[in-house]
Amino acid sequence: MTNTTTIPTSLNFRDDCLEILNQQKLPHEIENLKLSSLNEFYDAIVTLKVRGAPAIGITAAYGLAITLNHYQTENLDEFILKFREDKEYLFSSRPTAVNLGWALNSLEKAIENVQSVNEAKTTLLHTAIQLHTEDEVICRQIGEHGLELLKDKSAIMTICNAGSIATSKYGTALAPFHLGSEKGKNFHVYACETRPVLQGSRLTTWELQQSGVNVTLIADSMAAHTIKEKKVEAVITGADRITANGDTANKIGTSMLAILCRYFKIPFYVAAPSSTFDLTLPAGTSIPIEERAPEELTELNGHKVAPQGTQVYNPAFDVTPHELITGIITEKGVIYPSYEENIASMISGK
Amino acid sequence: MTNTTTIPTSLNFRDDCLEILNQQKLPHEIENLKLSSLNEFYDAIVTLKVRGAPAIGITAAYGLAITLNHYQTENLDEFILKFREDKEYLFSSRPTAVNLGWALNSLEKAIENVQSVNEAKTTLLHTAIQLHTEDEVICRQIGEHGLELLKDKSAIMTICNAGSIATSKYGTALAPFHLGSEKGKNFHVYACETRPVLQGSRLTTWELQQSGVNVTLIADSMAAHTIKEKKVEAVITGADRITANGDTANKIGTSMLAILCRYFKIPFYVAAPSSTFDLTLPAGTSIPIEERAPEELTELNGHKVAPQGTQVYNPAFDVTPHELITGIITEKGVIYPSYEENIASMISGK
Repeated sequence: MTNTTTIPTSLNFRDDCLEILNQQKLPHEIENLKLSSLNEFYDAIVTLKVRGAPAIGITAAYGLAITLNHYQTENLDEFILKFREDKEYLFSSRPTAVNLGWALNSLEKAIENVQSVNEAKTTLLHTAIQLHTEDEVICRQIGEHGLELLKDKSAIMTICNAGSIATSKYGTALAPFHLGSEKGKNFHVYACETRPVLQGSRLTTWELQQSGVNVTLIADSMAAHTIKEKKVEAVITGADRITANGDTANKIGTSMLAILCRYFKIPFYVAAPSSTFDLTLPAGTSIPIEERAPEELTELNGHKVAPQGTQVYNPAFDVTPHELITGIITEKGVIYPSYEENIASMISGK
Repeated sequence: MTNTTTIPTSLNFRDDCLEILNQQKLPHEIENLKLSSLNEFYDAIVTLKVRGAPAIGITAAYGLAITLNHYQTENLDEFILKFREDKEYLFSSRPTAVNLGWALNSLEKAIENVQSVNEAKTTLLHTAIQLHTEDEVICRQIGEHGLELLKDKSAIMTICNAGSIATSKYGTALAPFHLGSEKGKNFHVYACETRPVLQGSRLTTWELQQSGVNVTLIADSMAAHTIKEKKVEAVITGADRITANGDTANKIGTSMLAILCRYFKIPFYVAAPSSTFDLTLPAGTSIPIEERAPEELTELNGHKVAPQGTQVYNPAFDVTPHELITGIITEKGVIYPSYEENIASMISGK
């Protein structure tokens, strides 16, 4: 990773290992780690050196494919047994990440009908590479569709990091900016710092600076004032889960931005691949909201801020009701209201 | 200051000195500082050991009265000369704080017609004590009026610290909670942490805990989700300046809360003494908004968070348009729309 104007990526396949950008160390240290043993893959996911649902899925797929490539046996049954054992182990690293299970199941399906250990090994590597490259294509398509919605030279706001380092390349919400940079467009991105874990300050500013995008950091509480004073023309965010009616779970603060957009009469867009849709859930009220440790609010860098014993409410996500969403940008195109119908037809092909 | 259930105060007059609660050390250390020399008063204001417009004004008034009480002269002209010199010095500590100039001018007016140095000294001390006790009465009245608007046992949200330690006692936005606690009412206050300087985490949680108010800390970005999930019934904030049409400048994030209240159809109240109204300004567009140092966002406790050279927008205040304000709670009563008429009649008596 150099200091030139390029879109940063976090995953690079090197035959015998996967090289990952250590996101724990960003933005002050650009550390590339080589993962080659199963434990190294497991650890990288558990300790958030890799983050972002698509990036986690791809990393786990490479983890299985690379480590099993060295497994010594000619017995296919024994190989499949070992595959399942290692798959369960990697799956346990973050059982709630939807893309992790999806990627590992894709590998399992790919080797269903292989005839030899050699064929299985080749198929696993091929499938991991395919997941990796397909994700880049999907993100690029999201970027292209997003770019059609955003006016050149306009100010756009985002929250968290739905970026290139959370995917194969380009990201989801940040894809239009990276792609715009490649095409000579000049957006001015306002990045919300994204309390409490500060993915905006740490990751989005850095990532956009790398590809030459004009980015300005604000505190989350400054969103309303900034939209008004800096003439922000749209907000675009990623998504963790989208239900059948279009309700969208994403980083805490997202629903606040959607409400501000409604007040200021500017569009609010969600950008996500079709794998983010969970059509088994009818509406956002069914999405469980994870609460995180109070120390994320009561401490800063291990230094206590609030009084001992302060009660804290620390939800990690919120649900933006579909009626506040102007459009959902997917690799297949932009989905507009009415969402229930249009999601069914575009995502599940009904 | 003990750990019992009492409303904390930050200013105590002790004949020869003013004892202040050092707000730089809160909430982890309860340090009372004795101010007796002019330099000590100046330093306490400049370095934010005292904060909150009313508290700053009262501190400065005591500063002049206490230090001039020891000035050795029988010559009234010489005394007045020294008074003006020291007044200018204290005024320069924070020239933009409206209450500071107002308090110092009150002292000057009080000694306009004195006949001797002794009479001047007594009048100065008397006036400083009067400003101090009047502010407590004003805050208590704001609390009483606020209490009539808020339903017992309801959840209420606030931002920053418009509290007892920023005034003589009770505070403005927090006055109804302290008073409610005295009267056996049980509010549940959600305190926004108030990035970037975290007055909510550091001061409001501590202050409300001291008087036995049930308080829960949230990040500012959690306001929308919390209003919805915790059934918050109103938001109440302080004010730094209110213009003739009711537009209100206050801590950054306040206008965001007002917009959320409109969306969730709950009332948004401003609590402020009549001295906060600036009727020379017709509307909020005339209020200059101070921008603060980028390091408040790029660093946490001196530890860098964002990449070197990150662009930052860091406005300290925002302006809430009057049409989003349900009512302005003053010591004279609650002002409702239409604000231009009702502010003129209640504040300037027109």
